Amino acid sequence: MHDNRFAVVAKAGDRIADLSTPRPIIDEDRLAANISRVQSYMDEHGLNFRPHIKTHKIPALATAQVAAGAKGINCQKVTEAEVFANAGFEDILITFNIIGVPKLERLAALNDRISGLKVVADSQVTVDGLSAHFSGRKPLTVLVECDTGGARCGVQTPEQAASLAKYIAAADGLAFGGILTYPKPQSADAVEAFIQSTLKQLAAEGIACPIVSNGGTPSLFQAHLVKSATEHRAGTYIYNDRQMIRMGHCAQDDCAMHVLATVVSRPNADRAVIDAGSKALTSDLQGFTDFGLVVGYPEARITSLSEEHGVIDLSACTGQLPQIGEKLFIIPNHTCVVSNLFDTMVFHRSGIVTRVEDVAARGLVW
Amino acid sequence: MHDNRFAVVAKAGDRIADLSTPRPIIDEDRLAANISRVQSYMDEHGLNFRPHIKTHKIPALATAQVAAGAKGINCQKVTEAEVFANAGFEDILITFNIIGVPKLERLAALNDRISGLKVVADSQVTVDGLSAHFSGRKPLTVLVECDTGGARCGVQTPEQAASLAKYIAAADGLAFGGILTYPKPQSADAVEAFIQSTLKQLAAEGIACPIVSNGGTPSLFQAHLVKSATEHRAGTYIYNDRQMIRMGHCAQDDCAMHVLATVVSRPNADRAVIDAGSKALTSDLQGFTDFGLVVGYPEARITSLSEEHGVIDLSACTGQLPQIGEKLFIIPNHTCVVSNLFDTMVFHRSGIVTRVEDVAARGLVW
Repeated sequence: MHDNRFAVVAKAGDRIADLSTPRPIIDEDRLAANISRVQSYMDEHGLNFRPHIKTHKIPALATAQVAAGAKGINCQKVTEAEVFANAGFEDILITFNIIGVPKLERLAALNDRISGLKVVADSQVTVDGLSAHFSGRKPLTVLVECDTGGARCGVQTPEQAASLAKYIAAADGLAFGGILTYPKPQSADAVEAFIQSTLKQLAAEGIACPIVSNGGTPSLFQAHLVKSATEHRAGTYIYNDRQMIRMGHCAQDDCAMHVLATVVSRPNADRAVIDAGSKALTSDLQGFTDFGLVVGYPEARITSLSEEHGVIDLSACTGQLPQIGEKLFIIPNHTCVVSNLFDTMVFHRSGIVTRVEDVAARGLVW
Repeated sequence: MHDNRFAVVAKAGDRIADLSTPRPIIDEDRLAANISRVQSYMDEHGLNFRPHIKTHKIPALATAQVAAGAKGINCQKVTEAEVFANAGFEDILITFNIIGVPKLERLAALNDRISGLKVVADSQVTVDGLSAHFSGRKPLTVLVECDTGGARCGVQTPEQAASLAKYIAAADGLAFGGILTYPKPQSADAVEAFIQSTLKQLAAEGIACPIVSNGGTPSLFQAHLVKSATEHRAGTYIYNDRQMIRMGHCAQDDCAMHVLATVVSRPNADRAVIDAGSKALTSDLQGFTDFGLVVGYPEARITSLSEEHGVIDLSACTGQLPQIGEKLFIIPNHTCVVSNLFDTMVFHRSGIVTRVEDVAARGLVW
C-alpha cells in the first residue's frame, strides 16, 4: 500500500541534479559545521545543550548531536520520544502539557523503559492528571514551564512558578525537576530576572531546582547572558533557514537545507511556476510576505503557493531569468515544517548523494 | 520503524470523544450530502464531473464519487495517479506540466497500463519533453492548459492555446485531447469567451477538441454558465472548509472535516493554547488572518501556530470560555492541506467512529 510513499528516492552516489523534484536536500558539510559551531559555543560557556529533534526528526542526526557533546534531547510529543527511545536515547525532555488518557498511558509506558524522561506542566490541571496516572508507579520528573515573553504556554509570574513547583513536589507519583522558559528572542535580561525571582522563592521553601532550561535558536548565541540557566534547547540551528538569516543567527551559506524544485512553466515574462508548492515549502510565512529565498535569483519572490505549484514573480529580476526545466535551490522560511512533509531526507556533499535517512518521527499520531 | 506512524488510531465503534488529539475527523453524513449535492447539480446541467482527489487522497472516497456519477478523476502528480490506478481507476487526468526524466518514465509506465490517462501542457518545452519520451510508444493524450485569470500556469491567449494544440496534434507520440482552464472564481464570462475564441481557431484549423475542462470548487455552482465546457473539476467540495464558507459555496454545517484538538493551557484570562499547531491545521491563511474556525466559540481567534501549539485569543469571547482538557472542533481554513499531514483519516457518524482509511496518496514523492 505504501510502496510509493517509501519508494527509493535516491541512493549514495546519485547526482542531486538527477533527483526528481520537489525534494528537500541537506548539505552534509553545512550540517556538520552547524552542529559543531553551536556545540563549541555551549562548551565555551559551560552550558548543557539539549537539541530539539523537531527540526530533523531523524535519530541518526540526534546521535551526531550527542556525539558532539549534547547532554540529551528535546521532543514535543510522546510518540516522537518513543522513536528516539527506540534508538537508544535515555535523557528526553518532552516540552508539552500532557493531557488525556491515551497520551498519559503512552507516557507511563515510556517512563518505565528509559531513565531520564522529563515533561513540563503549567497548570494544576495538568499536574493533577499526571499525578493521578503516575501515583504508585515509577515517578515522573516534571518541570514548570514559564512564559518569559513567548506568549504561548507557561505560568505568567515567578510566584505562580514557585507555587506550581511546590504543588508538583507534593504530588503523588511526581518529582519536581526544575523550571523551563520559552522566551521571546533577545530578552535575556527579562528571562534572567524571572528565573532569579523564581529560584529565590523556591530556596525560601527549601525546594531544590536541578534544571533551569532556556531555549530557542534565534537568541542562541546570547544564551550565556541567562546566567542562571543550566541548559539551553534549540532545534532549527542544525539546518538553519531564511528566518534564522533574518534574525542574525546565521548567513545564507550556513543553511544546510534547500528545497530542490523545477521550473515547470513560464506563462509570461514576469512569472515562473515551480513544482514546489505548500506540500513542499509549507505556507509558514514567519514574518515574511513570500515563501522562500531562491538561490541565485535574489529579486525573485515566491508570491503564492497552491499544493503542488509555487508562483514566482520575476518582475524585479535583472539579468538572466529561470527557464522551463531549470532546477532551483530554495531556502525555506521555516525548515522544521518542511521536514514534517517528507518521509525520507536526502543528504549530499557537493551535489553527490551521501545517504538517505527515514524521517522516522514525521507525522506521528499523538 | 513505522509502528507509530501507522499505529491504530481508532476503530469502528470508538467514541470520537475518546480519540487522542490533534486529529482530523470526517462526518459521514456531511460527506455523503456533499457528494450528492454537487453530483446532482452536474447531472441537472448535463456536465461531466471529474473530482480532484487532492482533497482526500483516499481511493475509497473516489470510488464513492464515481459511484455517484463522476466520469473520471483528477490527480496532481504521477505518483498520486499510480495509487488510484492501483485501485482500479482508468480515466485519470493529471493537471500538471510533467518535466524531467524520472517523472516521464513513471508517466509512460502508467500510460501503458490504464486506458484513459491524460496530462496537460502549457509550453512547447513541456510538449517536446513528452513527445521525445512517448514517441514510438502508446500515445499520450495531452490537453492545453489555459490561464483564464487564475494567474498560475497556462497559455495566456486563445491564439497561444490554438497554436500549442496544433503543435501537440503534430507531435510524435502525443494526441491532442482538448483544453483546460484554471479560472479565477466568479469569472464565467471571461472563461467562456477564452474558450469560444480558442474553439473557433481550432475549428478553422480542422482540429477536433474532445474535452473542454473547467474547474474549481468556489465557483462550482456557476459551472453551467461556462456553456462550452464539457466537464468540471473540483476537489474541496467533498469536505468543504472555512474558505468555502466565506466564498459562499457552503454553510458551516456542510463542513465534513473538523480538526479535533484539546485545550492544554490557559496561561491567562485571554489566552488558550491547544495541541493543534501547524502540523495539524497548516499555516494556510487563504485570505484569513487567523488559522481556523472554533465551533461554538465564534469570537475565538487562533492567532498563531507553532508546530504543536495553537494560540487562541479569547479576548472577544463572551460567556463560558474553553477550559483545560476541553476538546474543540475546528474547521480548518483549507482542508486539502490538512489531509496531506495525516497518514490515516478517521470517519464518524454522530460521534461514533465508522471507519479509518489510509490516506494512501499522502506525501508521495514525485
